[in-house]
Amino acid sequence: MSVTTEFTSVEAQAIAAKKAAKVLSQLSTAEKNEVLHVLADALEKKTNVILEANQLDLDTGRAKGYDAAYMDRLALSKERISEFAEGLRQVATLEDPTGKILSSWTLANGLLVEKVSVPLGVIGMIYEARPNVTVDATGLALKSGNSIVLKGGSSALSSNQAIVQVMHEALDHTLVPKEAVQFIASTTREATQQLFTMKEHIDVLIPRGGASLINAVVNQATIPVLETGVGNCHLYIDVEADVDKALNILINAKTDRPAVCNALETAIIHKDWLIKNKSHLVDIFNKHGITVHGDEMAQTYIPNAVPATEKDWANEYLSLDLAIKTVNNVEEAIDHIETYGTKHSEAIVTENKETAKKFMSLVDASALYHNASTRFTDGGALGFGAEIGISTQKLHARGPMGLPALTTVKFIMSGNGQIR
Amino acid sequence: MSVTTEFTSVEAQAIAAKKAAKVLSQLSTAEKNEVLHVLADALEKKTNVILEANQLDLDTGRAKGYDAAYMDRLALSKERISEFAEGLRQVATLEDPTGKILSSWTLANGLLVEKVSVPLGVIGMIYEARPNVTVDATGLALKSGNSIVLKGGSSALSSNQAIVQVMHEALDHTLVPKEAVQFIASTTREATQQLFTMKEHIDVLIPRGGASLINAVVNQATIPVLETGVGNCHLYIDVEADVDKALNILINAKTDRPAVCNALETAIIHKDWLIKNKSHLVDIFNKHGITVHGDEMAQTYIPNAVPATEKDWANEYLSLDLAIKTVNNVEEAIDHIETYGTKHSEAIVTENKETAKKFMSLVDASALYHNASTRFTDGGALGFGAEIGISTQKLHARGPMGLPALTTVKFIMSGNGQIR
Repeated sequence: MSVTTEFTSVEAQAIAAKKAAKVLSQLSTAEKNEVLHVLADALEKKTNVILEANQLDLDTGRAKGYDAAYMDRLALSKERISEFAEGLRQVATLEDPTGKILSSWTLANGLLVEKVSVPLGVIGMIYEARPNVTVDATGLALKSGNSIVLKGGSSALSSNQAIVQVMHEALDHTLVPKEAVQFIASTTREATQQLFTMKEHIDVLIPRGGASLINAVVNQATIPVLETGVGNCHLYIDVEADVDKALNILINAKTDRPAVCNALETAIIHKDWLIKNKSHLVDIFNKHGITVHGDEMAQTYIPNAVPATEKDWANEYLSLDLAIKTVNNVEEAIDHIETYGTKHSEAIVTENKETAKKFMSLVDASALYHNASTRFTDGGALGFGAEIGISTQKLHARGPMGLPALTTVKFIMSGNGQIR
Repeated sequence: MSVTTEFTSVEAQAIAAKKAAKVLSQLSTAEKNEVLHVLADALEKKTNVILEANQLDLDTGRAKGYDAAYMDRLALSKERISEFAEGLRQVATLEDPTGKILSSWTLANGLLVEKVSVPLGVIGMIYEARPNVTVDATGLALKSGNSIVLKGGSSALSSNQAIVQVMHEALDHTLVPKEAVQFIASTTREATQQLFTMKEHIDVLIPRGGASLINAVVNQATIPVLETGVGNCHLYIDVEADVDKALNILINAKTDRPAVCNALETAIIHKDWLIKNKSHLVDIFNKHGITVHGDEMAQTYIPNAVPATEKDWANEYLSLDLAIKTVNNVEEAIDHIETYGTKHSEAIVTENKETAKKFMSLVDASALYHNASTRFTDGGALGFGAEIGISTQKLHARGPMGLPALTTVKFIMSGNGQIR
């Protein structure tokens, strides 16, 4: 019951996706929403099929000795599958990002110019062991009128294939050709290489996962890439920082969900503030089980701190570890972020508006926070509805990417014989 | 008097450009405009220096036997340099694309979210033998708060170096560090390779030139690329096309400026319309000296037509050659464009609104025209003020790219201690 046996190669799949995208681009918003509901219902109805397949992946993962966090991301349940379905129904409620006249004007010669949003076409999604991406990305792609080519991590292969199989069967009863959702089962280097370079058939690649996955895509792809997610996020606690705000934000950003990309990795602390508030810091680090990797001065005032090395400044711990760098002023903080940041989310705590303004202006990142936690860099938290990822690049989309990031534009000119 | 001796490598130049971009990003609109005027005045004042250098390039070009069109693009004059200066003054009058609050909202917890436009940072511009790009691209980069790293074609090396030298001397008296404008004189493969992969220092690469240059950049770069300019543009003359409109648009699109990217390359003609209007077509082709490369049916009705081969359908002639493909309906026209088009500019002439609508909806291109010439795909003609190129890709910017294409955004969040 492999979903891909009908296709002879990755290229054939991409070509089929492109053809299906034409059909998809002609559907109305209501028609697309209806399809999302059909998919949601099918996932809930076929939950057992998906859970059986997931069990195979879990058995393999256990045999391979994957760690608990990894197994947790991989594991599905009736509740999680219901959440997937609910997510699709949620996407159905969002505004259709296509078919909007973004601007229009008439030239002196009478030529009407309209800038209209349209689907990108075919989206290539490359991700690791989270089967939820299979559903979430499909929902966002279809809502925005795009076909999708999915390439999930091999450790979730059975789960992903089962999910796609369920969606394909459901699409058979809709206006969306099932070819609009392609799943690449092959894990060969050739299949990956093909996927990265099929410029004629795929319009954008979106990698979601760790730094090595993302770098592999960026370095090998000739298709434009939307880079997502690696977040080496910093919090600068200024000499004029309010103590309660600083401690609350530090703890929230570090401990609320340490494994996500908007979690805090390095606190940059003004030396005078550190000296004044060292006992508060020691208290909260102990209370929350945070391991501090400090520079020399941090080691002096935080007794349990281990020495920070160059690697610590660049590291995305994704755990309860925290690097502490001490500085003499906001400029040194900005320089440190410039050197080690990944342009994701950077925060400052200060009561001095001028200092905050300088930080906002000179730090180059997707999301900047004054007296708030980096944890808000999230499509849901910021009110985008749903997100396909968080872009850390500067072109096309930056920060949380909602449905509009999956569109492009056409200039449509209507005339009555105008020439130049 | 080489402008690059002070730098030891391409990387050192890119690092210096990045540092200068920070300074540039802090300048006000008035300060940037003032700098553009200083550069314009300097170019006019030092015209002789530039013309002397240009003479060296022209002598070399003549010795190498470059053709007339190439030499024409390379040749400077007092008037052309005045035009460059006027172009810079024109850019000074355009709206500053940075520092705009594009949208803002407040979350339920009181966190203020602002989406603000900011410069990209450092732009890498790779181009062929047109010294005007050296000035135009610098003006647009500085106005949008970006540093620029220029790599022009080797046949214009002396001209470009002289222009950059004049601009550097002028910048010494302004708030913009001269390091904001870098020119890479080395033509080695290593220098190019370095430029294509310095992701940490360069934010975007913009190639301007022929297909081989653009493909080299797209295939080798790990830095995001803004693809510009290759235009294999089509005009579909429908069975319901008005004869005068069709003939006027055909002639204008083909002959007004055959060497530019928005010029017509292939006319796709409905068979019935061709039969009815064959004598008109023969007349205008003779009158305008157009060489027709036709499919079988076109050869039957256009006596002087030479046989079109597969290569003709894919070719950007950039001359008074025209391919003619005959079709039975708009669907066949759309399929032909899908197969051979470069997603630049595509036009339809028809009095049938439904047919036009289908064409607009199903053809995937930056710019689509109903009853108007493809020649309008141009920043100036469409009212964008100035353009850095015409994007034929779908991400970030599509179609003519004005100053906003040289910006990205920051999400700036202002709070009073908000945590999640």
